[in-house]
Amino acid sequence: MAKKLRFAIIGAGRIGYVHAGSVYDNPDAELVYVVDPFVESATKVAAAFGGKVSSDPEAVINSGEIDAVIIGSPTPTHVPLLATAIKAGVHALCEKPIDLDIANVDSLRPIANGAKTNVTIGFNRRQDPQFKAVKARVDKGEIGKVEQVVITSRDPGPAPQAYIAVSGGIFRDMTIHDFDMARYFVPNIVEVSAVGANSFCDYIKEEDDFDSVSVILKGSANEIVTIVNSRHSAYGYDQRLEVFGDKGMLQIRNLTDTTVQLFSKDVSAAGEPYMDFFLERYAAAYRNELALFIEGIGAGKNLGSTYDDGRAALILADAAHESARTGKAVRVKLD
Amino acid sequence: MAKKLRFAIIGAGRIGYVHAGSVYDNPDAELVYVVDPFVESATKVAAAFGGKVSSDPEAVINSGEIDAVIIGSPTPTHVPLLATAIKAGVHALCEKPIDLDIANVDSLRPIANGAKTNVTIGFNRRQDPQFKAVKARVDKGEIGKVEQVVITSRDPGPAPQAYIAVSGGIFRDMTIHDFDMARYFVPNIVEVSAVGANSFCDYIKEEDDFDSVSVILKGSANEIVTIVNSRHSAYGYDQRLEVFGDKGMLQIRNLTDTTVQLFSKDVSAAGEPYMDFFLERYAAAYRNELALFIEGIGAGKNLGSTYDDGRAALILADAAHESARTGKAVRVKLD
Amino acid sequence: MAKKLRFAIIGAGRIGYVHAGSVYDNPDAELVYVVDPFVESATKVAAAFGGKVSSDPEAVINSGEIDAVIIGSPTPTHVPLLATAIKAGVHALCEKPIDLDIANVDSLRPIANGAKTNVTIGFNRRQDPQFKAVKARVDKGEIGKVEQVVITSRDPGPAPQAYIAVSGGIFRDMTIHDFDMARYFVPNIVEVSAVGANSFCDYIKEEDDFDSVSVILKGSANEIVTIVNSRHSAYGYDQRLEVFGDKGMLQIRNLTDTTVQLFSKDVSAAGEPYMDFFLERYAAAYRNELALFIEGIGAGKNLGSTYDDGRAALILADAAHESARTGKAVRVKLD
Amino acid sequence: MAKKLRFAIIGAGRIGYVHAGSVYDNPDAELVYVVDPFVESATKVAAAFGGKVSSDPEAVINSGEIDAVIIGSPTPTHVPLLATAIKAGVHALCEKPIDLDIANVDSLRPIANGAKTNVTIGFNRRQDPQFKAVKARVDKGEIGKVEQVVITSRDPGPAPQAYIAVSGGIFRDMTIHDFDMARYFVPNIVEVSAVGANSFCDYIKEEDDFDSVSVILKGSANEIVTIVNSRHSAYGYDQRLEVFGDKGMLQIRNLTDTTVQLFSKDVSAAGEPYMDFFLERYAAAYRNELALFIEGIGAGKNLGSTYDDGRAALILADAAHESARTGKAVRVKLD
Repeated sequence: MAKKLRFAIIGAGRIGYVHAGSVYDNPDAELVYVVDPFVESATKVAAAFGGKVSSDPEAVINSGEIDAVIIGSPTPTHVPLLATAIKAGVHALCEKPIDLDIANVDSLRPIANGAKTNVTIGFNRRQDPQFKAVKARVDKGEIGKVEQVVITSRDPGPAPQAYIAVSGGIFRDMTIHDFDMARYFVPNIVEVSAVGANSFCDYIKEEDDFDSVSVILKGSANEIVTIVNSRHSAYGYDQRLEVFGDKGMLQIRNLTDTTVQLFSKDVSAAGEPYMDFFLERYAAAYRNELALFIEGIGAGKNLGSTYDDGRAALILADAAHESARTGKAVRVKLD
Repeated sequence: MAKKLRFAIIGAGRIGYVHAGSVYDNPDAELVYVVDPFVESATKVAAAFGGKVSSDPEAVINSGEIDAVIIGSPTPTHVPLLATAIKAGVHALCEKPIDLDIANVDSLRPIANGAKTNVTIGFNRRQDPQFKAVKARVDKGEIGKVEQVVITSRDPGPAPQAYIAVSGGIFRDMTIHDFDMARYFVPNIVEVSAVGANSFCDYIKEEDDFDSVSVILKGSANEIVTIVNSRHSAYGYDQRLEVFGDKGMLQIRNLTDTTVQLFSKDVSAAGEPYMDFFLERYAAAYRNELALFIEGIGAGKNLGSTYDDGRAALILADAAHESARTGKAVRVKLD
Repeated sequence: MAKKLRFAIIGAGRIGYVHAGSVYDNPDAELVYVVDPFVESATKVAAAFGGKVSSDPEAVINSGEIDAVIIGSPTPTHVPLLATAIKAGVHALCEKPIDLDIANVDSLRPIANGAKTNVTIGFNRRQDPQFKAVKARVDKGEIGKVEQVVITSRDPGPAPQAYIAVSGGIFRDMTIHDFDMARYFVPNIVEVSAVGANSFCDYIKEEDDFDSVSVILKGSANEIVTIVNSRHSAYGYDQRLEVFGDKGMLQIRNLTDTTVQLFSKDVSAAGEPYMDFFLERYAAAYRNELALFIEGIGAGKNLGSTYDDGRAALILADAAHESARTGKAVRVKLD
Repeated sequence: MAKKLRFAIIGAGRIGYVHAGSVYDNPDAELVYVVDPFVESATKVAAAFGGKVSSDPEAVINSGEIDAVIIGSPTPTHVPLLATAIKAGVHALCEKPIDLDIANVDSLRPIANGAKTNVTIGFNRRQDPQFKAVKARVDKGEIGKVEQVVITSRDPGPAPQAYIAVSGGIFRDMTIHDFDMARYFVPNIVEVSAVGANSFCDYIKEEDDFDSVSVILKGSANEIVTIVNSRHSAYGYDQRLEVFGDKGMLQIRNLTDTTVQLFSKDVSAAGEPYMDFFLERYAAAYRNELALFIEGIGAGKNLGSTYDDGRAALILADAAHESARTGKAVRVKLD
C-alpha cells in the first residue's frame, strides 16, 4: 500500500460526519484535521474517526500537513475555501451547491478549471450503485436512444425554517441533485419549465419558497426530463428514476433494509418502509465518491463531478426558480 | 328482467366494434342498429353482435326504434349528432373529444346541460377497475390530502400520419385522457404548463405535432399534476398512475395477462410483456362504462362523465397546446 | 351459430351455482334442468340462470331432453350418475373426486374409458390461465427439463366439521387438486411420502384428519414434486406454483383484484389482500373448463381431464393418506 | 477502544479467506496467524489481511499469541482442533459441520459444553440480515404462532466430484444449513422424512449421493418444515424462506445487486440475475457472525450457534440420509 492521503474535513455537521467516516474506512486515506468553528462538533468527529481539531480552515489548508480537503461547511464558504485550496495545491472535494449566486461561481470558474489539483463537486448520486447501474446499461445501448427521463425525489420531511431561509430555495437546495441526475443522462439541457406549489408547509410559504415542485427540462437532442419533488413523504425518502428509450425502459426503486415481505389480512407482499433519509440511502454513494476522488488524485485528473457540473446544476436551478415565478420557460446555456 | 334498452352504434370502426360487443354482452341492452357510411364495416359489426345496418345516423336516431345511441364516429360529427339525439329524446354516450374546437363545444353546452335525456362523454378510464380502486381508497382518506398526481401514458406505437393530421394534436387526441384522469383526482385545475418534443417520429413532426410531451397542471388547492406521454413504447401500452397524499401514496402498475415470472441466467422475477393496447387494457372499463350509462338511464340521471367533463378536458388540451408553443403557463377556468 | 348444447346441472350447491353461471354465459350452451333433492336450492339456481327444476337426476339424464350433464352432487353419487349418463349417451363433466373409494372408481373404469360419449373430470385448475401459461412455457422448453415442482395451496379457512367428517380426509378432499396439478407437469408419479400435522383446528383432529400437510412425490424421470397445504390462511386463498428446470424457473403468484400498491409509514409497495376463495380465484378456470368440455363434444373426443386423471389423483391421495399414517413412502402405479 | 482480540485462522481456502477479511475489517480484532499445510495459500491470505504464516495449527493454538481461533480447515480436523483450543483456553469459531460422524461429535460434547472459553459453530445464516429480520418479526408475534416453514436452497452449480466424494452427502454438506435454519424457527424437531433424486448430475450419482432432495421435518408443537434443495440453479444462488403463522406469512426473496428493472418487448419489471454464490450473498452474515463471536467473548458467553446446535443439525442430516434411503420417517431426539 502506498502512502495514505492526508485529509482535512471542513465542517463537522451531519455531512462532515459522513465524509469523516468514509475517510476513516478508506484504506488509502487518513484523517488529519477536523475543522469547525464549533470546536465541540469538530472534537466529536475527531473522537470517532481521528484527526486534530481546528477552528481555522484557512490555516489548516495552508498547513502543509494535508493533501486533500473535503469542504462540507456552509455554502457561502465554498468559493473562498476552494480558492484557498487551489492556491495551496490541495485537492478539494466540495459539497454542492458551489454557491447560491452564479456570479460567485463564475468568478472562480477560470481558476477552478485551470487548477493543477483536482476540484470535485459532491454530486454523490452519480456514485450510487443504483443510478450507476442504470447509467451503465443505458450506455451499453440496452434501451436504445434516451428519449424521456423521469426523476422522483421526495424528502421524508421539510428542513427547519431557519435552514429554508438560507437555502436559496427548493430548486437550489433540493432539486439541484435532480438537475445533476438529469444531466447524468441528458448532459446538454437547453430549456427549463418549472411549477411550484405550497401544499402543506406554512413556514416554507413564509420564506417565499415552495414545498412541492415539478420541473420539465428539454435536452438539445429533443429529450424530455421530468422531475417531481416534495419536501415531505409519509413513506420515507423517495428516490426513483426512470429512463425511457426507444428500445425499452429502466427503472430503479427505493431501497429497503431487507427483502422481507408481509402477507396478512390487510396487505399482500408488503415491503418494509423505505430507508429514512440520505445518510442511509446514499451511504455507499458517499464512500464511492471518496474512493473515486482518491483514485482521481492518483490518476492526476478529476474522475468525479466537475466544477462545471456544479455550475450547470446551479444554472438549471436558477432557471427553474425564475420559471416557477414568471410562468415562462427559460432558455439556458450550460457551456 | 326489465325491457332491454334499444341501442344504435354510430361508427363501426375499432371503437364502435368494442362498444357493440359491450352492448351484446350486457343483459339489459340490445343492439338494434349499426350505422356507418361504410356499409361493409357496419355489416361486419352487425354480423357479430346483431342489429340492422344503416348508413344514415340522423334517420336512425329519429327512427323511434332506439332508446340510446353510442356515438363513435369521427370527431366532427359528435356535436351535430349529440344535438340530434338530444332533440330526439335519445340518450347519448359520446366518445371523446366532443370536438376539436371549443367554440363548437360551447355552442351546444346549454342544450347538452339542459337535456332531458342523459348525455355522457366516454372517458372510459374512470370506469377502469384499477383507477377506480385508487379513487375509492383516496376518497376513503387512506393517503390523506392529495398533493401530487403523476400520470404516465405511452402508446405502443404512433398512429398513422393520416390520423395524426386530423387528430387535433397529441394534447387533444392522446393527453386528453390524462387531463380527464387528472380531474378525477383534482377536479379544479387552474393552470397548464406543457413542453413538447419530436424525439423519434418524422411524420408527426411534419404535421407540426409532438411525439413526446410532459405537462404540469396546478390545482386550485395547490395540487400539482404531472403527465408524461410518448407516442411509442417498446414494452407495450404504458398506463400508470401515482397519487401522493400527505399520509402515503397509491400507485397502479401496468397489466399482464398472468402473474407468471421467469427466473433465468439473464433476468429475475421477469413478468410478461404488457398488454398491447387500449382495447385489451381497457376492456373492463368499456363494459363498466356502458353498464353505468345504462344504470344512469334507469336512475334518470347521468352517472358517468358529463358534457362539462368533456369540455374541461378540451380546455386543458387547448391550454397545453398553447403553452407548448408559447413557452408560457396558461391560466384556465373550467367552470 | 350452431344449435346450443342442452345441459342439466346436478347439485345446486355452491359449485353447481358456478357451473350454472358458466352454462348461462356460454353462447353454445343452454341450461335445461337444475336438479337437487333440495328443490329450493334448485329453484334458486334456475331463477338465476334458467332451466326447469327437478329432484330426480336419473329421470333427467334419461329424459332425452339433455345432451350433457354436469355432476356437482355429493361424491357418493358420482359413480352411479356417471354410469347412468354413459348408458344414456349423455356427455358428462363430473366434479372431483370421482369417489373416495378406489374400488368404486376401478369398477366403473372400463365403462368410462369405453364410453361413446365424453367423460370429463373437473380438475379446473388445468384450465386456469395462470397455470396454463406456465404449462405452455414449460412445454416450449423455456426452462429446459423439469426437475422440481413446488405447489403451495392454503385455504382461507377450514370447512365445517360436518364437511370434514365425510370429506375422506385432507388428501382426498383438498390435496387432490395439487396431485392433479403435480401430474400436469410430471404425469408419471411413482412414489408418495406425506406428513400430516394438527396445528390449529381441534375439530379436524377429532375427525382423525390433519389441518396441515406436506407431501413429496417422486416422478419416474427423477422429478421431485413438493406440496405444502394448510386448511387456513390469514391472508386469503393461497395458490402458488413453482416449476424448476435445468434452464430456469417459472412461478405464479396469487391474484389480487387490482395492481394497486400502498406506500405508507408502515409498508412499501403493499398489494391488496388476496382473493378470498376458489369461486373468485378460479372463475375463469371454471368457464374455460366448460368451454373445453363443449369444444370436446364438438370434436368427438374429451379434451379435458380424463377419468384416468381422476383415478390417478385418488391413487395419490390414498397413498398420501397411508404414508402420513405409517411413516413410510408408498409406491404407486398410475397406469 | 479496548485491546484487540488476537486471531488465528486455520484453513486458508475460500472460507478462510472470507473469515480473514472479516477479522481485518473488524476494529476489535487483529489477524495474528494464518495456518494451512499449503503454505502458499496461507501466505496469500496473510498478504491480503496481515498475520504470520504457519503450517502447524496445534502449535499456533498453543503459542500463547492468540485469544481466538477460527477453524475453517477440512471437516475431519474440526473435533481435534476444537479439543486443542478448549484445552488451551482459546475461544473457537468452528465451521459447520462439526464432524460427519455423530459419534465423534458426541465424544467431544461434554468437553465442548463444559468449556470455559466460547465454542461457536459457524451457522452464518442466522446472522444474515434477511433471515434475522424475519426472526425478529416472528418473535414479535407479527404472524402469530408458527405453523409451517418452507426453505428453498439451490446452489448455482454442483461442487466437483472430489468434493462430493468426501462431503458426507448432500444432507450433511448442503441441507445442513437448512436444518439449522429450520431450528432457528422450530428448535425442537422430532421427525424427519426425506426424498432424494438424481435429476441431472451423473458424477453425484456415481458417489451414491443425490443432486436434488426434499425434506419434511415435524416439530414438537406440530409445526411442519419443508425444505427443497438442488445442487444447481440456472438463475443463480437461490436462498428463500417462508414462515407461515396463524396470523400471516413472512417471506424473504433472493438478493440482487441493485433494484434496477428492465421493461422491454420481451419482459416487464425484470430484475437483475441473482448474486452468484454464498460469498457474495452471505458477506454481511459472515461479518455479523464474527462480530457476535467477539461480542460474546467480551460478554463471557457464547452468543452465536452452540455446539449442540451443530450436533442437532448433524442428527437431522443423518436422519434425512437414512430416511431417503429406507423410505421411512425417522424419529430424532435433539436434546
